[in-house]
Amino acid sequence: MNTTPSDTIALLVELVRRNSVTPDDKGCQAMIGERLARLGFVLESMPSGGVTNLWARLGTEAPLFAFAGHTDVVPTGNEEDWSSPPFAADIIDDHLVGRGAADMKGGVAAMVTAIERFVESGAHKHGSIALLLTSDEEGPATDGTTVVINKLEHRNEKIDYCIVGEPTSTNKLGDTIRHGRRGSLGATLIIRGIQGHVAYPHLADNPIHRAMPALNELTTIEWDKGNDHFPPTTLQISNFNAGTGATNVIPGQASVEFNLRYSPETSIEHIQSTIKELCSRHQLDTTLIWKDSARPFITTPGTLTQAMQQAIVSETGITATLDTGGGTSDGRFIAPTGAQTIEFGPINATIHQVNERVSCTDINSLTRIYESVLQQLLG
Amino acid sequence: MNTTPSDTIALLVELVRRNSVTPDDKGCQAMIGERLARLGFVLESMPSGGVTNLWARLGTEAPLFAFAGHTDVVPTGNEEDWSSPPFAADIIDDHLVGRGAADMKGGVAAMVTAIERFVESGAHKHGSIALLLTSDEEGPATDGTTVVINKLEHRNEKIDYCIVGEPTSTNKLGDTIRHGRRGSLGATLIIRGIQGHVAYPHLADNPIHRAMPALNELTTIEWDKGNDHFPPTTLQISNFNAGTGATNVIPGQASVEFNLRYSPETSIEHIQSTIKELCSRHQLDTTLIWKDSARPFITTPGTLTQAMQQAIVSETGITATLDTGGGTSDGRFIAPTGAQTIEFGPINATIHQVNERVSCTDINSLTRIYESVLQQLLG
Ligand SMILES: [Zn+2]
Ligand SMILES: [Zn+2]
Repeated sequence: MNTTPSDTIALLVELVRRNSVTPDDKGCQAMIGERLARLGFVLESMPSGGVTNLWARLGTEAPLFAFAGHTDVVPTGNEEDWSSPPFAADIIDDHLVGRGAADMKGGVAAMVTAIERFVESGAHKHGSIALLLTSDEEGPATDGTTVVINKLEHRNEKIDYCIVGEPTSTNKLGDTIRHGRRGSLGATLIIRGIQGHVAYPHLADNPIHRAMPALNELTTIEWDKGNDHFPPTTLQISNFNAGTGATNVIPGQASVEFNLRYSPETSIEHIQSTIKELCSRHQLDTTLIWKDSARPFITTPGTLTQAMQQAIVSETGITATLDTGGGTSDGRFIAPTGAQTIEFGPINATIHQVNERVSCTDINSLTRIYESVLQQLLG
Repeated sequence: MNTTPSDTIALLVELVRRNSVTPDDKGCQAMIGERLARLGFVLESMPSGGVTNLWARLGTEAPLFAFAGHTDVVPTGNEEDWSSPPFAADIIDDHLVGRGAADMKGGVAAMVTAIERFVESGAHKHGSIALLLTSDEEGPATDGTTVVINKLEHRNEKIDYCIVGEPTSTNKLGDTIRHGRRGSLGATLIIRGIQGHVAYPHLADNPIHRAMPALNELTTIEWDKGNDHFPPTTLQISNFNAGTGATNVIPGQASVEFNLRYSPETSIEHIQSTIKELCSRHQLDTTLIWKDSARPFITTPGTLTQAMQQAIVSETGITATLDTGGGTSDGRFIAPTGAQTIEFGPINATIHQVNERVSCTDINSLTRIYESVLQQLLG
């Protein structure tokens, strides 16, 4: 088998044509598994709650290098708004258009062909290679990567290096590597008052009025200044709903939802106690329900980041920036096991949007970058 | 015809049995008109936009004394929650139970029999008596009393004294006369920001965060201290809605509804310019839509209030308080014509609620109070 860069695009086309909206894998993992099995990988299917998960490993020695990714994609939105059908995988001006092209079937295709090339060329000298795939990254993520990681931890199978193929590049392929992510903490805050009529405010207790000074303070707290790796912690109120709809009724309660993206400079315990104290100091009658979505993680610059930066500069001439911005990713489940975990993949400008697309040239470069990392670590 | 107090209750039963939910009059006004026509009243039907309005007048001389009221009632809510069916007009322990019993078919029944008794007894010596009825007081009130008043003003027919039979008593029949009402001004405030993702707040502009300091200031403004007749102006936010429902999206706009109940110490122009200035000082991108629901009015203590206080103290022994509290009433349309306008009627504790009820003893007393006012002014 002669694996050339264009094999990556051929695989990407096959993946995009499967409309694998979360949690449907639509056979993507089986197809990839078959290719890896031909190389000698041992395949373990780890389905959970309707989600398809694959753990494929070649070799038993340390160090264990793993690629991680997801085969699920977000919904297309209105298909009529697309210039090409979202699951047609049309290639126009060197760009493959389709849902999931950038997030992250492009990265997945590049991993698979990079592994094939590395193994088939005989360059694989020591250590093990693994691929972790899930179809529940864009969804609640409760039956996906975390299930695989729990099983590995349970049997003491340790990943040493992990590359998650999320689209991290901003303007040019290679400009950004993520070596950590902020934590994400959500909360629903119910503020109770006493319902009444606007003409008799002394008989009521307006929860909107009560909320104002407290929420005003909440939105202006400086949690931290960030650090060398993290931007400062931020808090955003995403939803505020109060009112019966009638213009002459003071509502009985207000419901507020907010979310913090926090750096390791501020602990979840500190955030929770600060907000609890704030509510009590403002004498609010509240119920506060927390959602601990993701703890922050960081991979300190070292073997893996250096190998990746070296691979990128060789391929593109760009010195990649190490960054911890953006949303959450499945890296949050892998990094706490002690694995050096970074994310690197194509340009993310169109992800989750209409006409999501990826440059074929970039995906071919990405394949060579991934192969170069394998070469540096296991060659 | 021998009109005794129990005729008032008989009429009240007939009125309550008609389920005249706004804007349906269900024949109430025709029945009352027939009784007044027998006394020599000239009836003018002034229907408008599905609303039934009646103007009935006896005599052509000044001064013109008018009773004003409404035959429409608010919906019953869940009929199963009532101890008696809401349109059965059951009398239990001297209380007539039914929708509209207190608001305000009790007052209307008392007006009609008070007029009958006053005219039939031959006590009517000078001036004219009128009755103004509408079936659109509980609704938008755009096709009700205001239509009649406009027609009267157009032909230069001037009311000198007007008693609106709304239920103004709080704990005991006779404790409260309303001699004015605060103004009511509503507003919808749209605050625009820029939608975005909570992980990238620097690319968004959170309209909830922007609104907080401005609304906090808005709710703490001291508009005035009221005066001898009016409590201070109050502002209440009744509805606040912002958010897409998603916890990770910063919404593009926030929608706020608020209402002021204002005294004549603060003008509508001052309120509007103050809030406009506040929004602009807080650099908010807003749309502000005003709803001028009711201008404030006041009837300074004089002939009419004195006659009413005299009638009340004779019947009940209570010295009535002059008050301008509560919501709005159709008095707001009558007072601006220059008529001395007051409101007086039964206890309002159960109005708009399940098991609305009125004391039969009170309604009989109310009839004598209304008759005494007629006697003092036109006897
Ligand atoms: Zn992704
Ligand atoms: Zn009423």
